Amino acid sequence: MSLADSAAESGGPARGRPRSEAAERAIVEGVMKLLEDGVPLAELSIERIARTAGVGKATIYRRWPGKEELFVDVVRCAEPADPELPGTSMRDDLVAVLEQLRRRGLVSRSSVLLHNVFAQMKSSPKVWKAYHAAVVDPRRRLQLEILRRGQAAGELRADVDIDLLNDCFVGPMLVRTVMRPDAELPAGLSEQIVDTLLAGLRPVSSPSA
Amino acid sequence: MSLADSAAESGGPARGRPRSEAAERAIVEGVMKLLEDGVPLAELSIERIARTAGVGKATIYRRWPGKEELFVDVVRCAEPADPELPGTSMRDDLVAVLEQLRRRGLVSRSSVLLHNVFAQMKSSPKVWKAYHAAVVDPRRRLQLEILRRGQAAGELRADVDIDLLNDCFVGPMLVRTVMRPDAELPAGLSEQIVDTLLAGLRPVSSPSA
Repeated sequence: MSLADSAAESGGPARGRPRSEAAERAIVEGVMKLLEDGVPLAELSIERIARTAGVGKATIYRRWPGKEELFVDVVRCAEPADPELPGTSMRDDLVAVLEQLRRRGLVSRSSVLLHNVFAQMKSSPKVWKAYHAAVVDPRRRLQLEILRRGQAAGELRADVDIDLLNDCFVGPMLVRTVMRPDAELPAGLSEQIVDTLLAGLRPVSSPSA
Repeated sequence: MSLADSAAESGGPARGRPRSEAAERAIVEGVMKLLEDGVPLAELSIERIARTAGVGKATIYRRWPGKEELFVDVVRCAEPADPELPGTSMRDDLVAVLEQLRRRGLVSRSSVLLHNVFAQMKSSPKVWKAYHAAVVDPRRRLQLEILRRGQAAGELRADVDIDLLNDCFVGPMLVRTVMRPDAELPAGLSEQIVDTLLAGLRPVSSPSA
């Protein structure tokens, strides 16, 4: 155990938790503080983060291979948690996935910090890649898994590429949260998107349906 | 008519066209040349553009209120043209709209210039706003018009908010072109998206359908 670890551990509410978790939290909160103070991502050096968090640089490097990975974890802490899947049906699981995207959209609109952080992330290819590997890709794999279960259970048509089916479900929500900052994100939107897409956009009573 | 206009007009293939069109083309091509040479958007002054295009600054200001609007026109020239709507059905019109988004996605992947220009545009709120006013908003209005005609003709369900119906149709294509640079954009994708969404994602023979 390093001196830096002890310093982080002695910092108040971390009592009783494992040493590493307390240090980790101090580091993540240190980055958040620097970002809230308006320090641009490009100027966040490991040295500065260590100083702010009251830990040694080695303590940071023991947990994160680099600044990019640490930064991605900071963003994940600021975002709503991953969805808990009810597992009752493909429909319900998809609603849970879309609900997380909707809440994430609401948070990123109300949080200036998260909004700025996202803008900065996109202009740093290294951070963006790390974010995709840690957040976007696993989320996509989970979505495809839900859809495959749905196809197996007869809830989802099996004659269309599963990748495209996934884009159909998440596309409308992503357009609203990411590309249309003025679009409404009301409660019930996730259910409406999933149910509307399952039923189809043709009028139910139409002769051409 | 200014001397600058005459200079631009005398430049070759513009013979017979109205003077203003020749100058306009020289200016747009001047900006493209500067961008291709790697000049960042932030360093593109009206003075530099005028010098490159061989026109006077006044000639530029007579056509565009500012750098932002000129820049948006340059991007529009590099993008595929607006879709020609066949007008045979809502389905066919929507396919045409999605086809233009798909072609735009293909062009922006193959054109380093357009790709860089888009990245730079997004980091300039003023240019981004001008692009939305000139390109994105009119496109959205056209889409909503197509959908309203479809509802009136009984081709589209009328019990769902038209804004959401539009996000359902364009969402999957936008996710693929804008957010998933590795996703395939094969011929026939537009037709598949529109037809799949109209029919619904539930299996046709499913007892729950």
